[in-house]
Amino acid sequence: MPDEDSVSIYRVNGIDCSQATDRVAEEEPLEIRVIFNRGSQRVRRAVSVTMRTPGYDEELAAGFLFTEGLIQEAGQIERITTDQDDCNPNVIEVALKPGVTIELDRLTRNFYTTSSCGVCGKSSLAALQTQAPWALVKNEPQVSFATIHEMPKSLREKQRLFADTGGLHAAALFDAEGNLLSIREDVGRHNAVDRLIGELFLAGKLPAERTILFLSGRVSFELMQKAIMAGIPMIAAVGAPSSLAVEMARHFHATLVGFVRNGRFNIYSGPARIFRDQIAEAAVEATSILHPLTQ
Amino acid sequence: MPDEDSVSIYRVNGIDCSQATDRVAEEEPLEIRVIFNRGSQRVRRAVSVTMRTPGYDEELAAGFLFTEGLIQEAGQIERITTDQDDCNPNVIEVALKPGVTIELDRLTRNFYTTSSCGVCGKSSLAALQTQAPWALVKNEPQVSFATIHEMPKSLREKQRLFADTGGLHAAALFDAEGNLLSIREDVGRHNAVDRLIGELFLAGKLPAERTILFLSGRVSFELMQKAIMAGIPMIAAVGAPSSLAVEMARHFHATLVGFVRNGRFNIYSGPARIFRDQIAEAAVEATSILHPLTQ
Repeated sequence: MPDEDSVSIYRVNGIDCSQATDRVAEEEPLEIRVIFNRGSQRVRRAVSVTMRTPGYDEELAAGFLFTEGLIQEAGQIERITTDQDDCNPNVIEVALKPGVTIELDRLTRNFYTTSSCGVCGKSSLAALQTQAPWALVKNEPQVSFATIHEMPKSLREKQRLFADTGGLHAAALFDAEGNLLSIREDVGRHNAVDRLIGELFLAGKLPAERTILFLSGRVSFELMQKAIMAGIPMIAAVGAPSSLAVEMARHFHATLVGFVRNGRFNIYSGPARIFRDQIAEAAVEATSILHPLTQ
Repeated sequence: MPDEDSVSIYRVNGIDCSQATDRVAEEEPLEIRVIFNRGSQRVRRAVSVTMRTPGYDEELAAGFLFTEGLIQEAGQIERITTDQDDCNPNVIEVALKPGVTIELDRLTRNFYTTSSCGVCGKSSLAALQTQAPWALVKNEPQVSFATIHEMPKSLREKQRLFADTGGLHAAALFDAEGNLLSIREDVGRHNAVDRLIGELFLAGKLPAERTILFLSGRVSFELMQKAIMAGIPMIAAVGAPSSLAVEMARHFHATLVGFVRNGRFNIYSGPARIFRDQIAEAAVEATSILHPLTQ
């Protein structure tokens, strides 16, 4: 199984833009199931869905069950296999030996909920499509190279806590002209984004169709999904996007920009919302370069 | 509510060590509850426990419920308050207007499980204490300044995927002499750690009482908890620890080291496992400096 994907991108350096191929970290969901005896019955139960980079899934499942306190020693495990019925590599089943009991109550009392929906990227996208309340407006808003280049600086100036602690993710909302509308920080990046969107939601300002969500870190599937739910047409980030974030951005015709730093960035999806703010002649050239990415 | 905590640390720069105060990002659990009508009954139900930096919790709760597709507009909300019964700032309740129905099934089908147990840092620590299968051996192993300074380089040399994608967290296991035992990468840092621990678990090698877990990013409560479950006495990381990670490390007498980069690092907990590898005289000096941190 591959653990990285190659994608076609546009690489921007100052005012120059060129086509390139980039490798992104593969992100796929994994459902962990436990098979165990309850009385005389053999029971199969899903205990976790986690977004992960494929590989070493047996160790991941065993480590998860152990660190969660569900099993105590390797001898309790009969076998670990991918889903035998469907041959689905994104489902892993840990069968416990007869007689081994586990306290699933511990888990269900303390679950995390998540927007990751199901065990297959494709079905997740499908599920979101039926649910996303707004379609993104095509090619709107228009954002210049310079506006994107400036975002890290604007973020840093406002990110008070990170400067102190070095330990917080920031999410900021910009308008198309690069004005900072709001910024939130958190130890968890999904929380910072939930706060920004929650603020807009409570104020009746969704869909936020003329805004850009800017992130201090990486872009996962989950963050892309939250932006699309809020009708935000563009995510830009200091860090790298995952494979599933790119796939989702392209599916919904959203704009996804990564590695925004030091006067450079990569466009992974939706380049038509981005323009080069040079003299008119250069702008014409840019238009001819920035056709939609090949899917 | 404060959104950062001050802690006493030791700051190491090359072979020099001095006492200092550092500010760390505050991390605390938040339980989000929904109150709604089911038939003629008013029902209260927890839908998420997330580790977050306190602040803007109303927006966080609203944004979470909206981006998860549970509610569609602000008008469905009657009020958002912290827990009225217990005045617990780590519980937030979103009461929906009578007549508003929500599909909680969507959530329970797709839950994340987590090691965060409950809504209060103190009770989490208590819960872990009764459950952690091994106590850490006092002052063992002994790890030198130089060994810690070398870890980022060893990690980078082996971290193949990150160099390609810039999008992966790495977790590595070292022995006390700085030999790399294993390394795993993932889009989710908890998955990388689960894999390392799962590998040891399946091989019957727990507790891993003479190893150091080294992380490419930040140290959250959850990662500290996983290390302690595996009997790993020391975590070192390129990034910052959260407040709750520091609290947990001190509670369990584990060693926690952050900001390991460019010949420097900070010791947040358990300095007695770390020694300065200079001539004997200097080592004596170091011993006199490195008494246990004030709790």
